[in-house]
Amino acid sequence: MSESLIYQFPLNESSRTYLRIEQLFQRCIQAMEFDTEQSGLSFFSSIFDILEVLERADIRQDLIKDLESQQKEIARWAQYPNVDQAALKQLDQSIQKCLGELRGQVRLANCLKDDRFLSGIRQRFSIPGGNCCFDVPQLHHWIGLDAETRQTDMHRWISTLDSLRVSIALLMQLVRDGKLFRPAIAKKGFYQDSAENLQLLRIDCPAVTGVYPTVSGNKHRFTVRFMSLDSQGSSVDQDIEFKLSVS
Amino acid sequence: MSESLIYQFPLNESSRTYLRIEQLFQRCIQAMEFDTEQSGLSFFSSIFDILEVLERADIRQDLIKDLESQQKEIARWAQYPNVDQAALKQLDQSIQKCLGELRGQVRLANCLKDDRFLSGIRQRFSIPGGNCCFDVPQLHHWIGLDAETRQTDMHRWISTLDSLRVSIALLMQLVRDGKLFRPAIAKKGFYQDSAENLQLLRIDCPAVTGVYPTVSGNKHRFTVRFMSLDSQGSSVDQDIEFKLSVS
Repeated sequence: MSESLIYQFPLNESSRTYLRIEQLFQRCIQAMEFDTEQSGLSFFSSIFDILEVLERADIRQDLIKDLESQQKEIARWAQYPNVDQAALKQLDQSIQKCLGELRGQVRLANCLKDDRFLSGIRQRFSIPGGNCCFDVPQLHHWIGLDAETRQTDMHRWISTLDSLRVSIALLMQLVRDGKLFRPAIAKKGFYQDSAENLQLLRIDCPAVTGVYPTVSGNKHRFTVRFMSLDSQGSSVDQDIEFKLSVS
Repeated sequence: MSESLIYQFPLNESSRTYLRIEQLFQRCIQAMEFDTEQSGLSFFSSIFDILEVLERADIRQDLIKDLESQQKEIARWAQYPNVDQAALKQLDQSIQKCLGELRGQVRLANCLKDDRFLSGIRQRFSIPGGNCCFDVPQLHHWIGLDAETRQTDMHRWISTLDSLRVSIALLMQLVRDGKLFRPAIAKKGFYQDSAENLQLLRIDCPAVTGVYPTVSGNKHRFTVRFMSLDSQGSSVDQDIEFKLSVS
């Protein structure tokens, strides 16, 4: 929907999970802005996906560990002369607040799992086409309620995951911040670089080119390969100019 | 979103499938009206759900059989005096057109299954939270395209299922048409009636009551039980006035 499009690719497992949850939260928030049956379904679909992802991995421990690393990093910065000590202190306090909440909440999604309405409809969302009005009449009823009641409910549900949402948003902001985009060229659609201790790759390329990047990588290097949407899904063979940010 | 809410419940297996597909098509069409990332995701999610439902059951044969029954019914009506022969003829022609298309198209969704873009992203939609931008960068690219291109694509995809969509819409219209709503009372939230050869139950009740109907049934009878959204999911014990239409 814009002229330039940013693609984000995680380069390790925890970044992959954070990015996934961050995007699912964004979908929830977007869904809450609209007042249609469809956005109601999108809201539930996204919040149930978050629950699924949380059940698959112990994100809390990873998040605590990664936020602690960022905290040490900030302490290191604070020793340099001429840094904005006030800004660093504020960041440190934000991290400390997230850490406090994460440490105090052993099971992040317990409130939602215990919610009778949500648990009554959740199972039907995992069945393709399984959430029609006759499958879940209580959902059909809920969608028919006035907008204010639905907004109140959605805010109540999503706010139970606030510590997770805010912690991931803060961590990803720290990961992205200050990592500028630099111009790069993928010769014959192909770009490769070393990837020691990297977490996130961001690729900025025009939305209209009809090509999109795919990324593969391991601990030591990453590869960007541009593919064509029009052709038979093969990689492009012209040079592609793009912008790259590595974190 | 309205003051009165109509719940539809299928009373046999084929009606269940028709109603499901009809609702999924409605979601596709609604998603096409909006121009957001979310509606794009809803579109794909719904069209993939249709494909799943089509793979689970041989709907084409059922549809042909049910449309043929409706055609016989119309021929019977045509023998009565004072019926609108022109309207009946038009209905008969519509059915005939649907039957012709259904008989000529052995596998309804082949075009969509062969579509490279769709088949490239479909699998990711069945994984909870699995369709993030890094999972399916080609989808992220597609969502970034201009609205006109996306609309053209969506119309092209959905139109390959036109014979199915139009046939189900026509059949369900015939099933619903002329079946008026009559007032009914569920004593202590409970209503029961006989159900010989019934296909569809429609229940019209105010959206604000905080109660919703559930239906169970077999070949011989159906039961409507009103449940409360607020309480612990138990059935209500007051009398509920509603409107009922049986087809």
